[in-house]
Amino acid sequence: MTRIRPLILVVNDDGIDSSGIKLLTESMHEIGDVFVVAPNVNRSGSAHSMTLHEDIFIEKTDKDFNYFTCSGTPVDCVKSAVNTILPRMPDLCVSGINHGSNHSINSLYSGTLHGAMEGTIQGIPSIAFSHLNYSERINLVPFKVVIKRISLEVLKQGFSPGVTLNVNFPNIDFSKIKGVKLCKQGSGFWKENFKLIKKEHSKAYYRITGKFRYDKNDVNTDSWALVNKWISIVPISINCTVPINFNELKYLEYDF
Amino acid sequence: MTRIRPLILVVNDDGIDSSGIKLLTESMHEIGDVFVVAPNVNRSGSAHSMTLHEDIFIEKTDKDFNYFTCSGTPVDCVKSAVNTILPRMPDLCVSGINHGSNHSINSLYSGTLHGAMEGTIQGIPSIAFSHLNYSERINLVPFKVVIKRISLEVLKQGFSPGVTLNVNFPNIDFSKIKGVKLCKQGSGFWKENFKLIKKEHSKAYYRITGKFRYDKNDVNTDSWALVNKWISIVPISINCTVPINFNELKYLEYDF
Repeated sequence: MTRIRPLILVVNDDGIDSSGIKLLTESMHEIGDVFVVAPNVNRSGSAHSMTLHEDIFIEKTDKDFNYFTCSGTPVDCVKSAVNTILPRMPDLCVSGINHGSNHSINSLYSGTLHGAMEGTIQGIPSIAFSHLNYSERINLVPFKVVIKRISLEVLKQGFSPGVTLNVNFPNIDFSKIKGVKLCKQGSGFWKENFKLIKKEHSKAYYRITGKFRYDKNDVNTDSWALVNKWISIVPISINCTVPINFNELKYLEYDF
Repeated sequence: MTRIRPLILVVNDDGIDSSGIKLLTESMHEIGDVFVVAPNVNRSGSAHSMTLHEDIFIEKTDKDFNYFTCSGTPVDCVKSAVNTILPRMPDLCVSGINHGSNHSINSLYSGTLHGAMEGTIQGIPSIAFSHLNYSERINLVPFKVVIKRISLEVLKQGFSPGVTLNVNFPNIDFSKIKGVKLCKQGSGFWKENFKLIKKEHSKAYYRITGKFRYDKNDVNTDSWALVNKWISIVPISINCTVPINFNELKYLEYDF
């Protein structure tokens, strides 16, 4: 009896030439049949944005492998894969490895995570991987074993519809990492710095940079786990409703 | 004794010239001091994306009022307002009125809602308003009374940090609307249609359209409320962690 290999969709937001997606693709080739559909340029910070008012293009970039670029966002990549490229719905969607952190409030800005969340919307078990180091040159090879283990667990167990896994790797030597920890999203945020570049006519041009601020004592969050040498996994919901008792907001309701 | 009027930031994603933001601005002038910072072009579908790799510009567009355009996304608009335009942190941030629905899964794609969510991240009580009709020509004037009532309630009561209100108006005659209902985000989603526009060299160009699918019997959701002639309000969280017992995902944890 032939066992069918899992079909795996690989996306990212850094673009198809990043070293992170190359390592992720290599890892997935070891466990299944792989399709890569990734942005043709860097799409960091694109969150869950999609292209509504213009055409997007898709192009096969390798004659031997199913590697494609897309001119749209990570969300467009996943929608394109499902609607125009893949032979069937994939068994897994993985996104990354992002060069830079996607923990805490970065869950909202991240194109890497939201590519995976679009996979979840499409009904595919989906995982986002990010490394806290922003350099393309970092050695990601040791993380293959972790990526494969998490991916194989998800393929075996599946998980609740509507849930995406957000995995972050700490920026320390791999040998110092303690293990993998399930966490809540942390409460850290960016304190922006708007640098004035120039004033021209009535326009002021700025470049946005910023410093990330978080509370090291906010235990059981991703930010806390990463500082404490753990790989963090946060289960992320595509339903954004606040999980509170609605009674405290009842004052907003009224009949006409 | 002089009572200080509330300071209100108005944003949107349809752009500064849309009729929706004009009505919202007019409503806010009746309850406070207003700053408008809106995209210079239509930014629908921009979600929580922000500009990382290029400069953005800000331009004052009115000599009498504090109206500004920004070349970035709704998130960039809010960050720009807080960091370079406003005299102090505002008491309220309102976004919209969007021309088109932002209920159910649209919560993830919407630039209107995510503009307001960026307000929440900055610590400002924030509300997004959307109308299910996509036309700029619809008469939004009757909704002023609802917008002002919700805004004044929020200014008076405040609400939990980390919560944004997502308000949608049904596409029916105002006189037929029953009232305002607090809801959960619905489980509706888009079934995409990729229309092939042209093939040129090795590139295939597509335009993404789609049909929205939802379950009318999914009670107490925004989609259900809107079909049943209510204005829906969903309290949205900037923390995306799934509100489940983590025990069911414990198999993902391990020590090295």
